[in-house]
Amino acid sequence: MPERLLVVGGDAAGMSAAAIARRRAPALEVVALERGPYTSYSACGIPYYIGGLLDGPDRLISRSPDEFRQAGIVVHTRCEVTAIDLGARTLKVRDLESRSERTEGFDQLLYATGAEAVTPPVPGAEACDPVRTVDAAERFRARLGRGDGRSAVVIGAGYVGLEMAEALVTRGLEVALVDRNDQVMATLDPDMAAHVQDAAEGVGVQVMLSTAVEEIRHGGHGRPRSVLTSAGELAADHVVLSTGVRPATALAEAAGLEIGETGALRVDDHQRCAGADGVFAAGDCVESWHRVLERPVNVQLGTHANKQGRVAGTNATGGDVAFPGVVGTAVSKICRYEVGRTGISEREAEAAGIDVVSATIRDRTRAGYYPGAGPIWVKLVAEADTGRLLGGQIVGVEGAAKRIDVLATCVWSGMPVSELELLDLSYAPPFSGVYDPLLVAARQTAKAVSS
Amino acid sequence: MPERLLVVGGDAAGMSAAAIARRRAPALEVVALERGPYTSYSACGIPYYIGGLLDGPDRLISRSPDEFRQAGIVVHTRCEVTAIDLGARTLKVRDLESRSERTEGFDQLLYATGAEAVTPPVPGAEACDPVRTVDAAERFRARLGRGDGRSAVVIGAGYVGLEMAEALVTRGLEVALVDRNDQVMATLDPDMAAHVQDAAEGVGVQVMLSTAVEEIRHGGHGRPRSVLTSAGELAADHVVLSTGVRPATALAEAAGLEIGETGALRVDDHQRCAGADGVFAAGDCVESWHRVLERPVNVQLGTHANKQGRVAGTNATGGDVAFPGVVGTAVSKICRYEVGRTGISEREAEAAGIDVVSATIRDRTRAGYYPGAGPIWVKLVAEADTGRLLGGQIVGVEGAAKRIDVLATCVWSGMPVSELELLDLSYAPPFSGVYDPLLVAARQTAKAVSS
Repeated sequence: MPERLLVVGGDAAGMSAAAIARRRAPALEVVALERGPYTSYSACGIPYYIGGLLDGPDRLISRSPDEFRQAGIVVHTRCEVTAIDLGARTLKVRDLESRSERTEGFDQLLYATGAEAVTPPVPGAEACDPVRTVDAAERFRARLGRGDGRSAVVIGAGYVGLEMAEALVTRGLEVALVDRNDQVMATLDPDMAAHVQDAAEGVGVQVMLSTAVEEIRHGGHGRPRSVLTSAGELAADHVVLSTGVRPATALAEAAGLEIGETGALRVDDHQRCAGADGVFAAGDCVESWHRVLERPVNVQLGTHANKQGRVAGTNATGGDVAFPGVVGTAVSKICRYEVGRTGISEREAEAAGIDVVSATIRDRTRAGYYPGAGPIWVKLVAEADTGRLLGGQIVGVEGAAKRIDVLATCVWSGMPVSELELLDLSYAPPFSGVYDPLLVAARQTAKAVSS
Repeated sequence: MPERLLVVGGDAAGMSAAAIARRRAPALEVVALERGPYTSYSACGIPYYIGGLLDGPDRLISRSPDEFRQAGIVVHTRCEVTAIDLGARTLKVRDLESRSERTEGFDQLLYATGAEAVTPPVPGAEACDPVRTVDAAERFRARLGRGDGRSAVVIGAGYVGLEMAEALVTRGLEVALVDRNDQVMATLDPDMAAHVQDAAEGVGVQVMLSTAVEEIRHGGHGRPRSVLTSAGELAADHVVLSTGVRPATALAEAAGLEIGETGALRVDDHQRCAGADGVFAAGDCVESWHRVLERPVNVQLGTHANKQGRVAGTNATGGDVAFPGVVGTAVSKICRYEVGRTGISEREAEAAGIDVVSATIRDRTRAGYYPGAGPIWVKLVAEADTGRLLGGQIVGVEGAAKRIDVLATCVWSGMPVSELELLDLSYAPPFSGVYDPLLVAARQTAKAVSS
């Protein structure tokens, strides 16, 4: 009998692990179990599909079950794992088509169940589909395509809510974006988030902050009719919930795997679950080490899921690779602006009791005379006594946001802003002024450190 | 009598020094002497002005003499310094308008004469204007504007030659780009340069490599008529020389200031000239420390000139700031492609006797399904035994080149490619695939290191 690796969850983390395990250990049997009909899809692309930027959902699938099968991986879709017995090294699996149950044995286990939407505790919310999977997106787009509806309410003004609001405006709907917080994108500081709000309002999204949702009212056939909020009742032919996600850990918890303080699965830097030999976990359901906060966090991003999956799959097949942690880098495109962030914000520093200074500058993305130049705001957060860069936020027109990767690299390496100020970054008129906006921001922040 | 800082050369380095000295030392007399009519202009913008992307030359001037005067700096334009007497602490100055000569005394001196075009040693070349200054660009554009001419030959296929060739194609001319080298852009390795050549040829530039220029023939009124090359005679109503520049050090050398092996002025990390108390130098005329090659180099780029000017101006007024050196970062836009490079190329490594491995990948700038995605090539060069990133080259469509700054930061910090492979860089479909192309390239290079 060959050794057997079972992978629970067929998206980024699970299939990355399966693919590298397949390549590294030709004799290993690699079996992936996925609840939905698809593997390895881009949940990040769903708003663009909804907005009509891409035609079919197939383009969101980076690798189909059949492609994995051709590579020698056994893939079972529409199969839900209902229990894990770590002692017996078996799983209980329910086939969602045939409704039959069976038991699968494993030598190594890779747990990659991802995250699940948090449904807000208001009446009517449970009847709304959170549009987090490709099949949910297909259903939602079909409803939109029928053209029956003029209004939409998006609940939750994080980046997914903002992207969905933009997508629905693109489709000609009147869109309200409601959040109980007093700013959009809580991962940014309020001064930077204000520019993002401007961009959303600029395309016609009605942004309603400090507004609580009290009830989602449905009409005939279970279709939404309106959303009752602390600021009144809003017509809503469509309702989108973007009220966040939480790690899907119920199954792991029931099996006795350790859950950390963040609510996600605790793993070591080799993606091994504590105290469970041969059991690995990766992706949205696990904790990741935050290199600035120096504590575990739970971040749901495809980029970490892919890397952690590779690390887990390598280590599950005799390798020795560490996942080095995260610094909280994220980027998105919201209407006319690109938005990036890395490290910690001023607010996160305060919450963590870290004494910081910060500076924000407004500059241009290109030389002032070069066509297409537009505004860019850069905010840097540095440790007050050492000047070490702890975080950065960027909002601006095309060309702005990917600069966040330079800041992520500096945060990662612990570079002080005084060093960043004189870093040899590239310059040419189509790309920046003679001082890149990052250097200008570093100079301002260095002044704040030394004063 | 107040102390007096004389600045020789009124472009980026000189005026950066003057401006910060003015702010730091209110009692200091700051006097700048500039041979041409303009201060602080963007030579990098000249090809865009020639190509018609901007209307007037005034947009190339970042700060005019009058603006500096309003800030309390004495500025003399059209004044050429003809001799420096370090012992007497005086300069001889010729006023180019009145033809009169005078002597100016100084306590501190800032030498920032920039670079001058290298005229190729072929008959007729001396009659060509190298279009390196704003006034030369105005004259050239006036000639183009008269519409008398259909053909142009650009000699030298570095980035300036490529930008000028593109600009002249934009204006409807038939353009040949001639270089005796067997590739364009010698700062890239040949495999990466081939993509840039493709881009130039794609807009109709006739790229003629391994081709020697033998004579530039002029017709009536001293206007060019043709260029005789090893590949035949080319019609040339206009000829542009882009055959490189050298540091303008004649005056400094005559004054006894030390010239390094690169041919540029030797300075320490505080921009002080060796053995000459109170004499500083900055910009295109000086040597800069190359952090990878660990030797001085002479690089002509506005970004270094500005920073070195600030450092010199700070230190000339009692400050203590070091210029930390360069890693050879540069970026340009050539037709449909953006081009970036940092650190050392494979060829430079070989010339320096550094044992390296490299890998080149082709990827997409955005998620495959996101509109506007296009090709990007990334080449990384790493030290063979340590895996430390020593250099990177990028060619690709919009969004490609500014990624070079991430590589510059890694080269600067000495990060190994195995660490870069798992770095927390940003991901969202409008900006990259789930693995940024830099991470994909790092993984390939890490394999080459460990094999």
